[in-house]
Amino acid sequence: MKKSILVVGSVAFDDIETPWGKRFNALGGSAVYFSLAASHFSHVNFVGVAGNDYPDGALAVLHRHGIDTTGLKITDGLTFRWGGRYHQDLNQRDTLYTHLNVFADFSPKIPTEYRTTPIVFLGNIQPALQMAVLNQLPRPEFIGLDTMNYWINSTRAELMQVIPKVNLLVINDSELAELTGADNLLKGLKFLHELGLQYLIIKRGEYGAILSSADGLFYTPAFPLEMPVDPTGAGDSFAGGFFGYLGTCEHIDYACLKKAVVYGSVLGSFCVENFSVDGLVNLNQQKINTRYRQLRQMVEI
Amino acid sequence: MKKSILVVGSVAFDDIETPWGKRFNALGGSAVYFSLAASHFSHVNFVGVAGNDYPDGALAVLHRHGIDTTGLKITDGLTFRWGGRYHQDLNQRDTLYTHLNVFADFSPKIPTEYRTTPIVFLGNIQPALQMAVLNQLPRPEFIGLDTMNYWINSTRAELMQVIPKVNLLVINDSELAELTGADNLLKGLKFLHELGLQYLIIKRGEYGAILSSADGLFYTPAFPLEMPVDPTGAGDSFAGGFFGYLGTCEHIDYACLKKAVVYGSVLGSFCVENFSVDGLVNLNQQKINTRYRQLRQMVEI
Repeated sequence: MKKSILVVGSVAFDDIETPWGKRFNALGGSAVYFSLAASHFSHVNFVGVAGNDYPDGALAVLHRHGIDTTGLKITDGLTFRWGGRYHQDLNQRDTLYTHLNVFADFSPKIPTEYRTTPIVFLGNIQPALQMAVLNQLPRPEFIGLDTMNYWINSTRAELMQVIPKVNLLVINDSELAELTGADNLLKGLKFLHELGLQYLIIKRGEYGAILSSADGLFYTPAFPLEMPVDPTGAGDSFAGGFFGYLGTCEHIDYACLKKAVVYGSVLGSFCVENFSVDGLVNLNQQKINTRYRQLRQMVEI
Repeated sequence: MKKSILVVGSVAFDDIETPWGKRFNALGGSAVYFSLAASHFSHVNFVGVAGNDYPDGALAVLHRHGIDTTGLKITDGLTFRWGGRYHQDLNQRDTLYTHLNVFADFSPKIPTEYRTTPIVFLGNIQPALQMAVLNQLPRPEFIGLDTMNYWINSTRAELMQVIPKVNLLVINDSELAELTGADNLLKGLKFLHELGLQYLIIKRGEYGAILSSADGLFYTPAFPLEMPVDPTGAGDSFAGGFFGYLGTCEHIDYACLKKAVVYGSVLGSFCVENFSVDGLVNLNQQKINTRYRQLRQMVEI
């Protein structure tokens, strides 16, 4: 019996420029990328906020993927908008603008029927809001947490209160260094495990990802792409693939988590191959499983 | 029956500063790192040049590892000397000086008894010299080639003549991009495979290494270290571990090459844990095999 996933995060319009083209008003936001990726594995309960400019077509995309949007609040005003321009080297980007709009007053309220969702992903929002979400949930089986440099620097104390309450933190190398003050990956991981954090995922973009636990480290490469197009949402799609896969495991143990990292990497790769969420929408289980097998072959002797 | 390895490369004194200490007159040079790493697997025939300041103690280190130094020419003048300073982030370093000294006139002459060595590694020297070495060898079974940005930019035509004559090229991401003009890893690899190059190894430092062939890609992580001390020679130690392991394979096939990449990664890690060649000298087969197993476990589900 599959488990459902609750995601709390942003809903956005993205205006994206890359060396290969432009997209205006593209569907974006961490909760949107996450839930579309996760929907290929498990049922998703969605919590977010959008303005009354959010089109029915966007909701229809979510609904076609079986995503429950009871928790998506549509409110007066404009939807969060982000504009970014990628360089020839897609690892480099400039943020052109960030208009928080209705997202500035986001105060996530978890619908009653969502409160027993077994798996929870707290997207990259203010740590105090992440804590407020947790306080509405009686006893989730597994909780994941995302964050970013901005929260590490500006709301460190709040973030350090949330971390011991979750099972897994998703972070990248530089965020880990900022959060822990460690000049070295292993030292940074040790610091957080000693605080009681059970699992971490270190996202390394084109260099793949690492799952860290008391049982050791597990590495997966990123799926290599000949034609990456738009990295927007890759990390959220990774997380969606990861947590979506957790929903299919009877026991969320180390073996399940390791496979989930590979599925995360696969979903991240489909995201990057197309603009916006296109790579997540035109996708099926067979394509996912083929790429999973290919990625596993790349580390097998 | 193990196969011997012929290496042609530099012999140097290194003056190294890192945030953790300084070493003056440290043993260095690509052929020295390579041969010490390779010696843990196979017999090594060494070709290089040193000045008459090169100490007997250094030769004794090589001999203790069973390395044949018939091909190490000691000539009037000073040994090649390199000075470098590493930053807190060990991926960043400044070259303080490069005194080529006797290495400036290096013209490798392969001793008669070395000419049938089955496995050959052409260290990072001028491509015309690499070609001159190949012309002295009747028919090696397997040839590896190292190079660097400097040769790619200044002697590209000569380098492009050597590449089709070797089985494997060792290179890093940025060198691959410079050599092929490709903005993407897969495109760069395809370009070189289409020229007839059978294998490439892409060195990615702390992110591990990739073996590329017509059979696909094989990834290994770098062995994670809590206390990296001195990255000097890590790439050469990787190559030494890799080619040394090839010497133990009856057939140098894809399965052998994949294991060799992991052994390369292991030897690179032992190098980085200590200054100069110390990590390669205080080493035994048991330590190597333990780390090999640990590294393999980090990718297994």
